[in-house]
Amino acid sequence: MNEPTTVAPALWIALLHHPVVNREGRVVATAITNLDVHDIARAARTYRARGYFIVTPIERQRALAQRIVEHWCEGHGALRVPERGAALALTRIASNVDEVIASVTRETGQRPHVVATSAHADRVTIGFNALRERVRSGTSVLILLGTGWGLADDVFSGADDVLEPISPPGSDYNHLSVRCAAAIMLDRLLGSDG
Amino acid sequence: MNEPTTVAPALWIALLHHPVVNREGRVVATAITNLDVHDIARAARTYRARGYFIVTPIERQRALAQRIVEHWCEGHGALRVPERGAALALTRIASNVDEVIASVTRETGQRPHVVATSAHADRVTIGFNALRERVRSGTSVLILLGTGWGLADDVFSGADDVLEPISPPGSDYNHLSVRCAAAIMLDRLLGSDG
Repeated sequence: MNEPTTVAPALWIALLHHPVVNREGRVVATAITNLDVHDIARAARTYRARGYFIVTPIERQRALAQRIVEHWCEGHGALRVPERGAALALTRIASNVDEVIASVTRETGQRPHVVATSAHADRVTIGFNALRERVRSGTSVLILLGTGWGLADDVFSGADDVLEPISPPGSDYNHLSVRCAAAIMLDRLLGSDG
Repeated sequence: MNEPTTVAPALWIALLHHPVVNREGRVVATAITNLDVHDIARAARTYRARGYFIVTPIERQRALAQRIVEHWCEGHGALRVPERGAALALTRIASNVDEVIASVTRETGQRPHVVATSAHADRVTIGFNALRERVRSGTSVLILLGTGWGLADDVFSGADDVLEPISPPGSDYNHLSVRCAAAIMLDRLLGSDG
């Protein structure tokens, strides 16, 4: 692996396990999924995002996430698959979105532009191209992703923008896994111009 | 969910569990991962791919994949999360690439253009834009994805083309999960023009 040749984009991702909704639309806290931790960390590292936050208010779940990260960054996993530690080193654990915003603000000296995401188009305020331009212009951007059936209302009302859904032409199905949705978003926002 | 408005693209995906290489470069058969089945089926359905093949020469593994698909298409899972069945209905099980090619050929009446994928640039014969144009022009395309540390040499020599790697600008890291890589490829090949 060579050193990156340019400054990494000022983009952070946060995966929320609360407040999110379940299938029936009720606000719940979901459990951490091991592959969400790994896959999104690997995608974040590939696209040179600055950080990836695992967000849950449940202390035991935060401890679990911490153990996963430590296993791959310092433990047996780091010896066996060192490139996994390079990805998981981007991962941080937080209790809620305010903690995430505070952490990014401490790091950069300015509050990030907070962007909620959804599989539905009803609250959209910004498209991929416009957000890509904002990232390119140097704005610090924090993307919020929801587990379960998506982010709860409170998250949308607290965000600066809501990103358009990933909606391929002619598609009648919007049930991507959050892992795949995160990867596609990173590719659209930080990938090459093709 | 509304009906799709246009003809689905003539694109198939196959996830190979053999012949692939392990970390040391030896040819191995990997085990089926439940979330590979789900995530790639969901992405294939989202992007309206025609089919998603799970490929393994190990009979017990094929039976396992079949049970996963049946659970979500016909069993308890179909009642609980019906949209998951809509994705897994695209999934088929095969023993090897020849079976996959024969299946697509039976379906369309012509042999598909077989495209191998890799995280490395050393064998590339086609870029995303060129392959996207081929799909748009109506060519039947079969994308081969490798589990483990990627497809074995034999797969490359049997393919018609090797697709360029997903390689974001400035990135020094190429360890996306196969789930995320599949989703990004589908978005680049079948997503909107932005």
